[in-house]
Amino acid sequence: MRQAGRYLPEYRETRAKAGSFLNLCYSPALAEEVTLQPIRRYGFDASILFSDILVVPDGLGQTVGFKEGEGPVLDPITTPEGLDKLDLSRVVKHLEPVYETVKRLTKSLPEETTLIGFAGAPWTVATYMVGGRGSPDQGAAKAWAYKEPQEFQRLIDILTDATILHLSAQVDAGVEVLQIFDTWAGSLPETQFRKFAIEPVKRIVSSLKAKYPHVPVIGFPRGAGPLVLDYIKETGIQGVSLDTGMSLTWAADEVQKLACVQGNLDPLLLVAGGGEMRNAINNILKTLEKRPFIFNLGHGIVPQTPPEHVAELVKLVRNYGK
Amino acid sequence: MRQAGRYLPEYRETRAKAGSFLNLCYSPALAEEVTLQPIRRYGFDASILFSDILVVPDGLGQTVGFKEGEGPVLDPITTPEGLDKLDLSRVVKHLEPVYETVKRLTKSLPEETTLIGFAGAPWTVATYMVGGRGSPDQGAAKAWAYKEPQEFQRLIDILTDATILHLSAQVDAGVEVLQIFDTWAGSLPETQFRKFAIEPVKRIVSSLKAKYPHVPVIGFPRGAGPLVLDYIKETGIQGVSLDTGMSLTWAADEVQKLACVQGNLDPLLLVAGGGEMRNAINNILKTLEKRPFIFNLGHGIVPQTPPEHVAELVKLVRNYGK
Repeated sequence: MRQAGRYLPEYRETRAKAGSFLNLCYSPALAEEVTLQPIRRYGFDASILFSDILVVPDGLGQTVGFKEGEGPVLDPITTPEGLDKLDLSRVVKHLEPVYETVKRLTKSLPEETTLIGFAGAPWTVATYMVGGRGSPDQGAAKAWAYKEPQEFQRLIDILTDATILHLSAQVDAGVEVLQIFDTWAGSLPETQFRKFAIEPVKRIVSSLKAKYPHVPVIGFPRGAGPLVLDYIKETGIQGVSLDTGMSLTWAADEVQKLACVQGNLDPLLLVAGGGEMRNAINNILKTLEKRPFIFNLGHGIVPQTPPEHVAELVKLVRNYGK
Repeated sequence: MRQAGRYLPEYRETRAKAGSFLNLCYSPALAEEVTLQPIRRYGFDASILFSDILVVPDGLGQTVGFKEGEGPVLDPITTPEGLDKLDLSRVVKHLEPVYETVKRLTKSLPEETTLIGFAGAPWTVATYMVGGRGSPDQGAAKAWAYKEPQEFQRLIDILTDATILHLSAQVDAGVEVLQIFDTWAGSLPETQFRKFAIEPVKRIVSSLKAKYPHVPVIGFPRGAGPLVLDYIKETGIQGVSLDTGMSLTWAADEVQKLACVQGNLDPLLLVAGGGEMRNAINNILKTLEKRPFIFNLGHGIVPQTPPEHVAELVKLVRNYGK
């Protein structure tokens, strides 16, 4: 999950130097710095590249911006003509600064710290590309997907190809693990979940496995519920992130048989801290410790998180069972 | 699920006469009229009372309003002192117009049409009472629940009592089935899901069952994923609504053994219409027909729904298998 962010004063300082948010993503020295900040503070076992899932549409040539306090704003694409303008051949070239950041990190990260690269899953990225911004119901993307499923499939296919290129370039530059974020997977009906969430990720994973058999891929089909089982089996991912709402007991019984799981502390418990946070951390560890497991949040860290709560979390996890 | 609404021109006409949204809920003649409108048009097997989940905090004495295009706005309650002001003894008296609407409907609805009463589940209603409005992450309610779980439990307890009173009064006035909407259940970690979603609904159901053993209760723990099984077993509900993202195949295998299910057409498929909508309707019917099942949406109907798509849906469901 996201490690860097506004909850850290040192991040806010670097962020202020960058101008726009995308400029921060595209400035290797600054992106390297904010990637390293949480590692310096907390010594996590793994570091996740500082970047954004919307660099892919930006790389494809869609206009992408970030408004302070509002989030991403894109020039929405809702027609086949809009799709015609997307240019796969410019993705890797345009995102060169991201790979440069990875190269720097392979040198500046402590040797024992794993570097994770990532991308958004095609469905989730498509919801922003079609809607032009985040939305509670992914209504714009669904409208297109439901009315013109072939046209929408073309967008998914372009994004699948772009994601393969982007993740491959990250591996070539030095990331050791990949994660694919499908934040909005859970809002799809089963039929469309299989078509727009499982199928593209299956193609991405199989393409990556062919080239990089040694690089594990972690999936995050947020809100997929019981469909997470088919998601793992069909996509071929080795690891899966559990969202905050996912039942730990069910995950221990059903999910851990299939993949290494990570999760799923509510980021808002990390904001609250105290006894409820400590109980939740212990409960996660106790329930999932018997099989391959990575302690993690159930979603990205939020700006109002007190940094000392993260320090307490790390201490509790490291001292567990000692 | 919600049947009446802005997608119907006759609703918009009645709505315009009512002034505020709450005034529409509290004017028996107008609330009766908008409840009847979808039944007149489509002849559904069941009718759901026109009301709102936020009449309960309004009944408890919290200031509740609805801003056009913005949704509910409440004076947030975030302290024990705020809780002290909530008054259980005024709920049933304040909501008398709602029960009057029910009484009218028992006379004006076609005899073969079942009348469903409803309430929001305590957790979901609490998210609005504490946050003052809808929020994507239920952050305000979670902040309180995680920092001061005993205080927050008091709010849940008050809401549980108020919900029992409100649902009982609806049955006394003539509703034949009850539904409890827990729209935000899925965002809770398992521990809090059990404490704030399952436990209060268990208490509501057991209290209602003692008084009205003949009245079925339908639960809707939206986004609960595999926890829906424990939700059914522990609360004692007879029916369960499946959200749009719930796997139909999993529900057929696991959920239908435990309860009558209803669902789960994506309301946005009903907006889109056409082949994808028809395929989805047939798929739901085919997958769930073998055991007790009520055709329904996965969430409430949305304003941009073309009324003719609803007519087509009804025709498809009624002609299925003929």
